[in-house]
Amino acid sequence: MFGSVRKPGYVKSRAAGPSEISELQVWITSADSECDSYPSLTSDESYELTVDQPNAVLKASKVWGALRGLETFSQLVYEDAYGAKNINSTTISDFPRFAHRGILLDTSRHFLPIKVILANLEAMAMNKFNVFHWHIVDDPSFPYLSRTFPQLSQQGAYHPYTHVYTPADVKMIIEFARLRGIRVIPEFDTPGHTQSWGKGQKDLLTPCYSGTTPSGTFGPVNPILNTTYSFMRQLFSEISSVFPDAYVHLGGDEVDFSCWRSNPDIQNFMEQQGFGQDYSKLESFYIQKLKGYMIWQEVFDNGLKPDTLIHVWKGNQQQYKDEMANITSAGYHTLLSTPWYLNRISYGQDWQGVYRADPQDFKGTEAQKKLVIGGEACLWGEYVDATNLTPRLWPRASAVAERLWSAKEVTDISDAYSRLSMHRCRLVERGIPAEPLFTSFCPHEYKGV
Amino acid sequence: MFGSVRKPGYVKSRAAGPSEISELQVWITSADSECDSYPSLTSDESYELTVDQPNAVLKASKVWGALRGLETFSQLVYEDAYGAKNINSTTISDFPRFAHRGILLDTSRHFLPIKVILANLEAMAMNKFNVFHWHIVDDPSFPYLSRTFPQLSQQGAYHPYTHVYTPADVKMIIEFARLRGIRVIPEFDTPGHTQSWGKGQKDLLTPCYSGTTPSGTFGPVNPILNTTYSFMRQLFSEISSVFPDAYVHLGGDEVDFSCWRSNPDIQNFMEQQGFGQDYSKLESFYIQKLKGYMIWQEVFDNGLKPDTLIHVWKGNQQQYKDEMANITSAGYHTLLSTPWYLNRISYGQDWQGVYRADPQDFKGTEAQKKLVIGGEACLWGEYVDATNLTPRLWPRASAVAERLWSAKEVTDISDAYSRLSMHRCRLVERGIPAEPLFTSFCPHEYKGV
Repeated sequence: MFGSVRKPGYVKSRAAGPSEISELQVWITSADSECDSYPSLTSDESYELTVDQPNAVLKASKVWGALRGLETFSQLVYEDAYGAKNINSTTISDFPRFAHRGILLDTSRHFLPIKVILANLEAMAMNKFNVFHWHIVDDPSFPYLSRTFPQLSQQGAYHPYTHVYTPADVKMIIEFARLRGIRVIPEFDTPGHTQSWGKGQKDLLTPCYSGTTPSGTFGPVNPILNTTYSFMRQLFSEISSVFPDAYVHLGGDEVDFSCWRSNPDIQNFMEQQGFGQDYSKLESFYIQKLKGYMIWQEVFDNGLKPDTLIHVWKGNQQQYKDEMANITSAGYHTLLSTPWYLNRISYGQDWQGVYRADPQDFKGTEAQKKLVIGGEACLWGEYVDATNLTPRLWPRASAVAERLWSAKEVTDISDAYSRLSMHRCRLVERGIPAEPLFTSFCPHEYKGV
Repeated sequence: MFGSVRKPGYVKSRAAGPSEISELQVWITSADSECDSYPSLTSDESYELTVDQPNAVLKASKVWGALRGLETFSQLVYEDAYGAKNINSTTISDFPRFAHRGILLDTSRHFLPIKVILANLEAMAMNKFNVFHWHIVDDPSFPYLSRTFPQLSQQGAYHPYTHVYTPADVKMIIEFARLRGIRVIPEFDTPGHTQSWGKGQKDLLTPCYSGTTPSGTFGPVNPILNTTYSFMRQLFSEISSVFPDAYVHLGGDEVDFSCWRSNPDIQNFMEQQGFGQDYSKLESFYIQKLKGYMIWQEVFDNGLKPDTLIHVWKGNQQQYKDEMANITSAGYHTLLSTPWYLNRISYGQDWQGVYRADPQDFKGTEAQKKLVIGGEACLWGEYVDATNLTPRLWPRASAVAERLWSAKEVTDISDAYSRLSMHRCRLVERGIPAEPLFTSFCPHEYKGV
């Protein structure tokens, strides 16, 4: 079993001879099972599982816990040398350490066909992840087909028909995720990372100047025009109705101020507002005019509204820990991604570093630690598309999954190695091309080539 | 077009209006087409291709050139925005710079299902590779099912039935390769890298000693027993009949002398032979008793028979160049792999370093340079299996393919980038999950997820 189970408590089957489990009963104990709801940050994912002949019983307050428990049950089943399925008697009481356990996929740098996204939602469920952070648009392309502004993908997608997510596609992905207890949080990153937006929306981006004349290139979203905010209001209103989750990730990262600085109209505006030369104030001005829920850390660094979730992604090990300490000491909720940039590959067993990182491992009070809601493994899209995404993500993301679900004390690397090796073979057998950790074999090798 | 074509000589279609190619004529001009032969180191792969309405003509002396020319023809065809297939008028006279252009796959560290091997033979043909170096057995497992010594795979494979290559499998792989002009050179690496051999063949490996008693562990092949040589004679006799190629790679790399040194019988033998403490002499003694054709470089370093091919794989950039200079100045033929260990991944566009390396880039005379027969891209198996092998190998191996086929002067990186990007989309469209070089898209994304 991997990425799961607070107290494994394996018990050998009591009967000396062969015994059988004839039934798995699933009891949802709460009056509202939440079967028809969307999962949320506060969803109850706890469950209790008892395996004992002749019955196994899975109890959960809500459907979300039942889903997690079914996954655990399936992982308890093992095959013997003759191919027979076995399960040991056991009692498990399980719940996640963190409420937010996400995977970020980037569909802008490379378009990801629906099939790839669905396969990875399946793999996420097998690893008890519960958030799909969909970095849907960015500089290189705008594949989101907006009903309100169809020209955004018409002009900004790699191809207006073959490389877009239609409203039906998005709906299907959200429902497929919901059925697995996974939230879909879309990210529409602004004011930077918006080159592709500019193609379909006139006057949205800031014209950069070279000296006193426009250079012909464009920078971040233009934060001084009313048209910008009316556009954003309409777009985000659509987004809120398309994506049911309470959170929309507004990005806010890596804004290049040089274009704003070059533009005389922006300069005048800065002066009027009394921002001096501090362009981070202009970014905050912009972000505060959007109704922001969840953002990247720079926005915090530069000052922001309270009640916002801060996503930490930058810095070396010391720097991100300091950032987590600062954010939580200011009373904000936070989640961690810095050590989990799984797009950054290296030769060898880099899952170990991934596994060792802990989102609560920074200097702070117990109250501060409680403000950490979890983390996300990120697979940015520069070097991945449908050809290589799944084996690059799995089972490395499984190491993140266990860190975010299991008890803090579960840190033994060699124990994790053997469980993770088995788990990756389990993923392979279920059709997920999860790559090997090291020299080894799976009883059932990947057949999907 | 990528990995091909000495003098592209693109000519725009002469006719102003639409014109059509109605036929591609393939002429094999030699009396013996070699259609029923196996390819070899001296196979003629040259061809001439003329595309002009209403006919295209492909002329080659042998079938091998015709195969390469057909690949080029297919790469000249491009799709316009309406999906129509086009080809420009052109005349091409093409031949490879190096005769040995190989890919090494390792089926011991991870077993590779037949399907993966065949898919990669297809991809090799698309890239004009002509040698499949099959590193078939090694320490971790012995998947080769030997008719003479079936206990080798019975005991030494990961699984005796599901993780072996039967005689029929091997025959099929060799024929599949032959039909694409690809030689299959098997490697049975000895005397090191043989832990898996010891499981099915008693007394083959050297018992290691701890002080005056056997430690229970085993080292390299035992070179002082007559039984070793009678076993090897029978095994290699079978191998020579199963694999039609003139070359068998005997390995000879990374022999750990400490076990030999610990063993009193070996010590005595060393004394009798007058080898002193020089265990490399014992390795040469062993290798010379095998009929060796192609070996790793250490065997050269330690002294060997003439008429042998030396495979250079170690060292940093300066060291491997010095090694190539030394080997060729001693008059041996050589091939290069050091810069082409494609298993060693790093984040970013590492294909560029791969592309820049040149097997003739060392200090030496023209005569020395002529002793370089080519090179091989190696994908060792520690971290790859059926789940991730193909995207890890392609299109990075395509950079090696072009270096080994095209003229020495073809080195422009940005030109290579644009051709390689198109080529990788071509591979993807043909069902090979070749990974992206960078942020981009293919008109037809990978569908095989």
